[in-house]
Amino acid sequence: MEHVSVPPLSRVAVCGGTHGNEMSGVYMVREMQKQKVDIAGSVSVTTVLSNPAAVDACRRYIETDLNRCFTNALLSGPITDSTPLELRRAQELNALLGPKGSRDAVDLVCDIHNTTANMGLCLIFYSLDWITLHIYKYIQSKMTSAPVRAIQLDIPISEAYSLESVGQHGFAIEVGPQPTGVLRADIYNVVKEAVDLTLEWLQKFNSGTTFEGGKVEAYSLVRSIDYPRDTTTSEITAAIHPELQDNDFKLLQPGDPIFKSFSGEMVKHEGEELYPFFVNECAYYEKKIAFHLAQKKTLTIPSISVKKD
Amino acid sequence: MEHVSVPPLSRVAVCGGTHGNEMSGVYMVREMQKQKVDIAGSVSVTTVLSNPAAVDACRRYIETDLNRCFTNALLSGPITDSTPLELRRAQELNALLGPKGSRDAVDLVCDIHNTTANMGLCLIFYSLDWITLHIYKYIQSKMTSAPVRAIQLDIPISEAYSLESVGQHGFAIEVGPQPTGVLRADIYNVVKEAVDLTLEWLQKFNSGTTFEGGKVEAYSLVRSIDYPRDTTTSEITAAIHPELQDNDFKLLQPGDPIFKSFSGEMVKHEGEELYPFFVNECAYYEKKIAFHLAQKKTLTIPSISVKKD
Repeated sequence: MEHVSVPPLSRVAVCGGTHGNEMSGVYMVREMQKQKVDIAGSVSVTTVLSNPAAVDACRRYIETDLNRCFTNALLSGPITDSTPLELRRAQELNALLGPKGSRDAVDLVCDIHNTTANMGLCLIFYSLDWITLHIYKYIQSKMTSAPVRAIQLDIPISEAYSLESVGQHGFAIEVGPQPTGVLRADIYNVVKEAVDLTLEWLQKFNSGTTFEGGKVEAYSLVRSIDYPRDTTTSEITAAIHPELQDNDFKLLQPGDPIFKSFSGEMVKHEGEELYPFFVNECAYYEKKIAFHLAQKKTLTIPSISVKKD
Repeated sequence: MEHVSVPPLSRVAVCGGTHGNEMSGVYMVREMQKQKVDIAGSVSVTTVLSNPAAVDACRRYIETDLNRCFTNALLSGPITDSTPLELRRAQELNALLGPKGSRDAVDLVCDIHNTTANMGLCLIFYSLDWITLHIYKYIQSKMTSAPVRAIQLDIPISEAYSLESVGQHGFAIEVGPQPTGVLRADIYNVVKEAVDLTLEWLQKFNSGTTFEGGKVEAYSLVRSIDYPRDTTTSEITAAIHPELQDNDFKLLQPGDPIFKSFSGEMVKHEGEELYPFFVNECAYYEKKIAFHLAQKKTLTIPSISVKKD
């Protein structure tokens, strides 16, 4: 595969508190602001507490999920008296870090999230992007404190709904397991290591380092599975099976247990072999998602270096 | 120690959802209601979803912490337009299960809670009570799926603020670790086993079984420790140290690490040897409690049987 050269990446945004009860990003951003981390070598760093009202309330959101507000349609819609707080904030963040899809947008948005699922460190991408896949490869090669995986959602950028889609490049850093409203030192350290390695990669890249290409693995979303529910009340009637709980990214074979009902029955996985992730994520009960299923893909990426003037 | 005989215990209340985002109790109570568990042998069982509004919102509480509303003073105060929803509900629950301190109150209240701390199964008591200590001893001898401990708070019953204080006897069943808003099958099974063993003990007791006395251990609250905080913003500046995280009930010696600041410094335990519990409980950030410290006591309890007419 050919070599790719791209312009310098001089402006990065590190965001936390997009979900106000995911504490690693909240404290990471506050600590960076306290330490006045606004330049890292050749890179200017903007730190953003995305949803301060939700952070104060220690809730995911106040009126609507901020991290579903960054589609082109929602960002360009009118603001009225009944516009939710989070949609107003999305348009503010788009003005600060974007505008989305423009050359004025920051070069890279890293948005920090936590999950109650046992996912280690995942970088979440919308689409294939050599820059972010190289950062992923770099983090994976250096990270000592957690497994590192990539998740590809494959959504057109105009319909991409989350904050990192505002940057010219972007990814979510998703780390777990951590309960909402709780700050664990081990999880915080994983986030800090990932942010530090990202800034390190950008500086090396800007100063002329060539990063070799090669193969990387990514998990590509296939479909989502809801909890079994009572047909009249729609209340859930089963929990994630103990053999699936905490086993994100362990291949599910047909016949493997996925749910255990409160009355004791087991529900089995049907269909092809797939990889579960976001297993028993707290915030997905209301979205009717017990877990996602993915295929594993191997991607070949070109070597990359900065384009000299 | 002498033998104690007491009247039959014929009315028990099993409560869940006192905190609306602690899911084991919510689903345990719903399942018992679905299965129409209202008689268990000689015992009539009342199942109560304590704070339905908070359960619907999947939050600990709507206006104020329901499980701090059951002091004599709050239960006898006037209701006005500005009375919080939870205080109204506390007075309703007191009418249903109490009145607190009266002979009309149910014989036993078991209130089901979850914690994000790694506490296994704990029964929490206000004061020494042969009945509840015998149930604790019984559960401890039979439980297979988690360690079982007792916590003694030593608060006079009139000032006892939580729901179980409304019964003639009562305890909270506290099980963790489980994130708020998440239902784990393993934790649910521990709760179910504890409730089933409690009902089994009551039936055996009522039908004339003598339960032998002996020694039991209990952890008695000594004091609470807050997070290190910024003196101006009062934001926390350190997380629970990885060596303390998940190590509830492991004896803390002077010099053992308890916090790790975001800038890397370690804070050590000072003073006498004590046992930490409720380490990094989600809901205690707002109460300014990073963990509690306890002494371990050995209690000697008499043998007990039902008083025949």
